[in-house]
Formats: sequence, C-alpha cells, structure tokens
Amino acid sequence: MLGRVRTAVAQLVGGLGPAARPQLRGTPLAPPRPQRLPAFLQLTSEELQLADDHAGRAVQSPRESRRRLPWSTGYAEVINAGKSQHNEDQACCEVVVVDRRCSPRSVPTVPSLLQGRKDLCFHYWGLFDGHAGSGAAVMASKLLHLHICDQLRDLVDILQDSSPPPLCLPGIARELPAEQNRAPLAQADAELPSDALPRFHLEKAVSHESLVIGAIENAFKRMDEQIERERMTRLVAGGCCALAVVYLLGKVYVANAGDSRAIIIRNGEIIPMSREFTPETERQRLQFLGFLRPELLGNEFTHLEFPRRIQHKELGKKMLYRDQNMNGWAYKRIEEDDLKFPLIYGEGKKARVMATIGVTRGLGDHDLKVYNSNIHIKPFLSCVPEVRVYDLTQYEHCPDDVLVLGTDGLWDVTNDREVADVVKEVLMDYEPNDPCRYTVAAYELVVRSRGVLKERGWRLPNDKLGSGDDISVFVIPLGGPGNYT
Amino acid sequence: MLGRVRTAVAQLVGGLGPAARPQLRGTPLAPPRPQRLPAFLQLTSEELQLADDHAGRAVQSPRESRRRLPWSTGYAEVINAGKSQHNEDQACCEVVVVDRRCSPRSVPTVPSLLQGRKDLCFHYWGLFDGHAGSGAAVMASKLLHLHICDQLRDLVDILQDSSPPPLCLPGIARELPAEQNRAPLAQADAELPSDALPRFHLEKAVSHESLVIGAIENAFKRMDEQIERERMTRLVAGGCCALAVVYLLGKVYVANAGDSRAIIIRNGEIIPMSREFTPETERQRLQFLGFLRPELLGNEFTHLEFPRRIQHKELGKKMLYRDQNMNGWAYKRIEEDDLKFPLIYGEGKKARVMATIGVTRGLGDHDLKVYNSNIHIKPFLSCVPEVRVYDLTQYEHCPDDVLVLGTDGLWDVTNDREVADVVKEVLMDYEPNDPCRYTVAAYELVVRSRGVLKERGWRLPNDKLGSGDDISVFVIPLGGPGNYT
Repeated sequence: MLGRVRTAVAQLVGGLGPAARPQLRGTPLAPPRPQRLPAFLQLTSEELQLADDHAGRAVQSPRESRRRLPWSTGYAEVINAGKSQHNEDQACCEVVVVDRRCSPRSVPTVPSLLQGRKDLCFHYWGLFDGHAGSGAAVMASKLLHLHICDQLRDLVDILQDSSPPPLCLPGIARELPAEQNRAPLAQADAELPSDALPRFHLEKAVSHESLVIGAIENAFKRMDEQIERERMTRLVAGGCCALAVVYLLGKVYVANAGDSRAIIIRNGEIIPMSREFTPETERQRLQFLGFLRPELLGNEFTHLEFPRRIQHKELGKKMLYRDQNMNGWAYKRIEEDDLKFPLIYGEGKKARVMATIGVTRGLGDHDLKVYNSNIHIKPFLSCVPEVRVYDLTQYEHCPDDVLVLGTDGLWDVTNDREVADVVKEVLMDYEPNDPCRYTVAAYELVVRSRGVLKERGWRLPNDKLGSGDDISVFVIPLGGPGNYT
Repeated sequence: MLGRVRTAVAQLVGGLGPAARPQLRGTPLAPPRPQRLPAFLQLTSEELQLADDHAGRAVQSPRESRRRLPWSTGYAEVINAGKSQHNEDQACCEVVVVDRRCSPRSVPTVPSLLQGRKDLCFHYWGLFDGHAGSGAAVMASKLLHLHICDQLRDLVDILQDSSPPPLCLPGIARELPAEQNRAPLAQADAELPSDALPRFHLEKAVSHESLVIGAIENAFKRMDEQIERERMTRLVAGGCCALAVVYLLGKVYVANAGDSRAIIIRNGEIIPMSREFTPETERQRLQFLGFLRPELLGNEFTHLEFPRRIQHKELGKKMLYRDQNMNGWAYKRIEEDDLKFPLIYGEGKKARVMATIGVTRGLGDHDLKVYNSNIHIKPFLSCVPEVRVYDLTQYEHCPDDVLVLGTDGLWDVTNDREVADVVKEVLMDYEPNDPCRYTVAAYELVVRSRGVLKERGWRLPNDKLGSGDDISVFVIPLGGPGNYT
C-alpha cells in the first residue's frame, strides 16, 4: 500500500524512500533517539545544552551561516521557565514530493490524466505543543507530513487536472454479495413512487480544494492512530496540539487541532487563519457526547455546566446551569446528580475537561485518565483539525506580508495586533530582499513574549508576567524573497 | 407553579389571566377552533375564504382601518400556489406582561430587589412555517410567547437589578441524603492536593443577557414538549419552523429554529440576525448522532455522506465520502454497509434528512417516520433555537431602519440585498412618520416574491419562477413612529 516518500531534508526522518514505509504503518521501529529540538536548527551538543537551560532561556533560531529554511522562513523558540524539564514544543519545516500510488490491478478512470505526468510537491510547516511529555510532539513533528503525503498519493493526477474530481475510482474487485443482503431502502428504490426518495442521478460536485482538506484531516487521524499503536514501543507519553500548514498548487491550507494559532498579516491587516479548541470553545460538542454516552462520565461527572461547584447543603435550591443544547443560562432545582463534578469546568486558561486537560483537540493522550480514577479522557478529545484555506494567487503579496504561527506561549501574552506591530517594526529595519529579516522577526516575537528575568520572574516591559511556557514561532513570508512558484 | 399571564391582545389565547394556565401544562384543552390565519389580521369570513384561494393568491395585510400592530409593525402574507390546502405559515405579534413567580416558601436572595417592584414587559413577534399540516404552527403561534413569559417569571426582579444575577436561588428544602450517596469526586475534593482539582471558589460570571437567551431556549423546549403531550387531543399533525423575536429591556433577541430568516437593515447595511438550520448546515451534528447511536439509523441508513447513491456493482471501488468529523472529502473503498442510504442526502433546497425532511430544527414532528418504515426522525431534529442579540440602545436608529422576518417562501426567490432595496424603495415613498409604510413594505416584499400569474405559473419580472410556497413577512421599525421605550 505505501510507496515512496521523498523529502527535501532527508535527515529529519532518518533515510527516506522505501525505507520510510514502516514509520507510518507495519512493524514499529525501535524508539527514536531523543531529539528534542527541530533538526533544522542544526545545533551542536553545547548549543543543545544551552537551549535546555531554564534559568537563561536563550532563544534559539536557525544560524545565518547554516542551511536556510524554504521560503526564507523565520523561526525562533525558547524553553519554558521550569514547568517541564525539556522544551515540549516541536517544529518541522519541509518540502515534500508526493509519488502517485500505483495499484497494479487498477485502471485509471481518466487515462488522459496520465499523459505528461507531473510530480506533486508541497511545502510544509508544523508546530507541535506537547503536554505531559514531549513524546507525542516529537513523533508528530517527524511523521505528520509523511501521513499528509500518503493521503495525497491517490490525488496526484486528480489535483493537477482541471476537470472535477471523479466521484468514483476503480478499485480491487470483490465478490458481490447475494442480493438479499442489500439494505432494504436500496432494494425499495425501484418500487417507490418517484417523489418518495431523491433521484438516483443526483450528484454533488466536490472541489479539488475539499480533497486536500479531506487528505489533511485523514492524515491527522492516521497520525493519531499510529501514536496509539506505537506508544509503548516508542515510549511516547502525553499528547500535543498540532498546527500544520501545507502550501499546495497555489493555496495555503492551515490545519489546527489545539490552542496554537495562525494569522496572516497582509498590508497591516490581520486575517485569522485558525481558532483555538478548548473546553470553552468546544463545550457543546463535549456536553453532547457526555449526554449521549453517560457511561463515559464514569458516574463522577455530570454533562451539565454550573457556574461553580455545588455544595451538598444546597440540594433543593435553584442554581444556574447550561445544558448541551443551550447557549444561555437558566435556573434548575439542584438534585443529587448535580453534585457530580461538571464535565467542563473553569474559565479561560483554567477551563478543563474532567478537571484535567485544557485543550480538546490534538494528537496522543491515549492513556490520559482522570486523577485517581479509571475514567478515560481520550473519547472527549478530537484529533481532527479545522482546515482554513487561503488562496495565495488571489492577491499580490509584498515582502512584508507574512503568515505567523505560534504556540500558546506566544499568544498568552501577545495579541494579534501586538504581533503584527512587532513584525512590522522588525521588517522595516531590513531590506525587503534580506532573507534573515523573517528570522529576526520570529526572534523578536519570542524575546518579547518571554520578557526579561527580574527579581520577580520573567517580566514584560509593562511589568506584567512574561510567558513562562515554551514559545515557538514561525514567520513565513508570503511575497518575500522565497520563490515558491 | 404557573401563575397569571396577561397579554395585550387577550382574544388570541382565549381569555388570559389565571385561565391561561392549562394551556401550558396540566389537562389538555379541547382542540381549538381551527383559526388558520393570524387573529391580528381580523379577517371577516369572506376575506378568510379569499385568503385561502390558491388561484388568486391575494396578499393579506392588516387593514389600516383596524387595529394597528405594536411599533406600527408591517405584516403581509400569501397562500402557496397549491402545494397544501391551507396556508401553513402562522404569525403572532404581542405585548406580554410578565408576572413574578411567587413561591410561598422561598425567601428572596436579595431583599432590596423587591423595593419598588417593577413590572416586566416584552414585545414579541413570531413566524411559524408549518409542514405536513398547520397544526404545530397554529399551536406554537398561540402559545410560544406564553412559554417565554413563563420562563421569564423567575427573572422579573433579577433582570431589572443592575447587580450580576445570583448563581443560586433559594428553593424548597429537601431531605438531605446520606453522605455515602455523594459523588466520589465531591467527597474526594478535601483529600486531594490543592492543584489536582480546580478550586471551590471559582465562580463564572453570568450576564443578564444570557439569562434571557436561556429562558427563550427553554421556552422552545417546553413548547415542543407540550406539542408532544397534546398532539393527540389537539389533533396536531406535522411540525413547524419557528422564528421568534423578543424585545426586552432595550435588547432585541432573535431566536431561530428552522429555515426562516431575520435581517436588520440599518442605514442601508444588512446585519444577518439568524442562520438557517438545514441538513447541509447541520450535517456534522446529525452525522455525529448517527455515528454515536447507530440504532437510530434502523439498518437502512449510513451516517457517512456520499456525493451520489452507490450502485451495488460498485462494491470494492473507491468513492468520495465525508465522515462526521470531516469538512473535506476523501476516497474510501466501498463496502456492503456503504450501500445503505446516506443519512444526509441532496443539495440546497433538495437536501434531506433520511430522505424525508429538509429542515433540522423546529417544533413538532413527533410522529414523523421514514416512508414505509418504523424509523423515527425526531431524534435527529432539534427544537432549540439559535438566539442572536441586538442592542437597540447602542445605535440611534432612523425611521428607515427595520428588522425583516420572513419564511423561506420569501428568501427562496429574494436575497438579502433585494429585500433591502425593496424596503428602501417603498419607505422613500412615504413620510417617515406615516405608520402604514411598514405594512406597504411587507406587502411589496410578498407580492414581488410571489410574482404574477402567467401562462406558465407565477413569474417574477425577470421571468424566473416566483415562490410557490406560503410567504409571510414582518417589517418591524427600529427607530420609527412606534415608541417602544
């Protein structure tokens, strides 16, 4: 099933081509060497040690003297202020060539597609913000783009053909089951009055763009399944948020699962390219699941939301609550069941699912349980990203137009406008064709969000607390010196 | 539990005050006299007959000589071109006074609230688009505002007090159960390290506005429950979309469950105040339910979406599909199960849930089943509206600023911009303080969407088909001669 995968930066995945296969499926590999920082930083062992120093928190960026990232992408990161031993953020930046899938038994639907076969290639950036360990983030940073590549292999010719995608592709013939096994409605079609069921010939048009979105969504699912399968042999603990960007055939696809964020800054204007998935933004999906599958709540939690914990002595009083299908609040009489802990509880950065986790989408977390219990949290988490699309060809971009990706360490202390202002300020200081300007912008964003170490911890210029979290930032030029056509 | 309800137009609900109680709960009433058009039209029996004429399709509006609607609201409606015997749209326009709920055993939390007790009053407009009969629409048009009133009765003093709503209200004391019945997590709180669970004292602030939203949401649920309880005795068949507007304490709440639509036209600008709930817009909610509760699909349907029906001979081939957690499309190998009928099928106005119904929210439909089967569709339908809020006090409105409500008969053939243009054109022809201008605007909107009867049916000026559906329209002035402060 799995064919060859080539990438521009081979060392990241340890020898590609056919050898890359078992990394996605099949026999699990031995645990990878712990490589806790992106390979593209090309750090020496002394530099690696320095990067891990919680006291100094030195910001890491690609050195000018070393290999430049595609599109002259800027990148910077810094370790947290001590909340975990290592930097749990991970990053990846790649150019990936997609080989078509060759199915010996299949016949191409549209033979003309195979005339003048062209390779398909995508640019890729990924940010992974790990929690409860960096294992899932490390694994995803090394493999997610290969899963995307694999999902695109069926589409190499389809995406490069201007006609609409075929709804049906040839496949491997299977023995046809007996007629009586057919679903009754399918059988009934012919017998029904013509207006009782929709007509057979109705066909929905599906765009090329939505095929790429589907490929990215399924790649996230396959990645999550691989983490589940191999978490024991690879010693992968915890989970991670994943923010991935794919540039393919003129369009930028931004896929987000978690609380990282992507914005485009174009001519000073901010275009949000993602939204965060947290217990608050996904409340209704989670409550709906708890409502439909109460056994997942383990008799410890209630799917109802309350504005605070209810005390036992309040039984019989009326308390504000929100049900899964409500956006407003109302009063209900407190019953025994309402004394259970709310499935969603807390506000803002302190909001938690089952009093445990503050993000609701991402990869990994297959073993996550409620403290001191046997209640699994994974059923409430989704690994599916929301994908937003930006058509690069619809607008003439200048060298100052960028796509900024950041983990929550950035966004917790710096809002969209402030990020845009810092980027503008830095870029102004450099010639438009100076490729290092995007790295300096990323560096400045990280430094300003981290702050400066004072007596009372890391502080911003306004004396507010700087981010004590790991911070990772990509600044990707959309119309700069990187030539991506 | 239920107290007095007074409304400005008593005859609509057949004698209000204490007598109104059993209409909401308790012993079901005898079936109401069939009154198939809004009482506020005050039509004579000859006029009623004329309104029911499918050939002439005379547009109905309140006569200038009769009672004027609150705020000088404009209204017009027309019957369909023959698709059902009666006009299945219903409308209601009311001013409702809310009495506080008196609980003899309760002590007010904030005694000061009871100083200078003020009445609470709301303005109300409702549009109900029935299907498979007008029973649910008729019942909802006569009762939904009373349910809203009932839900607001706990809130009369709270909403008029500037302090934040109390999270907990006194209630009827109940015998406290034994300690061992408490939820384990609640017991464990005291034993856990302080950072293992969120602190007790965390309290979420709840706004007055969200209490009104919650009251409207719950009123829709109670209305739907009442239709379920009384559908046999009241001979209520079918279901209806419901679009309700509540003006309360300076804010306009627009609650929509179905495919009617509300827009505000302010200074020529269009502000959408609702979105439509259809198999396409609610695909993921429905697929998620079918995925979690496959027994609801009755072995006839698959929760997967396909761009067309799959033929038996295509088993083993690859077909485009969308799962519940996908926005994009991908190919999957066709299996036996995929031959079932897709839960969501068709596009645009032809999209259906279980090949049957084209709207996914509304009231009623408790007996709706898939054709020739025992599969219930109601579990997939939601009666909960989406409520949007517009603060009238935040903007100085001119007499040309209006809120337009219309059933899908209007919006199927006339888009937002065209509606705004017609309204502007009509209002320009009348003095700003002429109260009949809003009725003329509503009348024009209905006439232009219906079209003119030609040889080949009802036609618009551009010769496209006019709407053959029932059409009902409210035009509500936001800054006109109607004084609502």
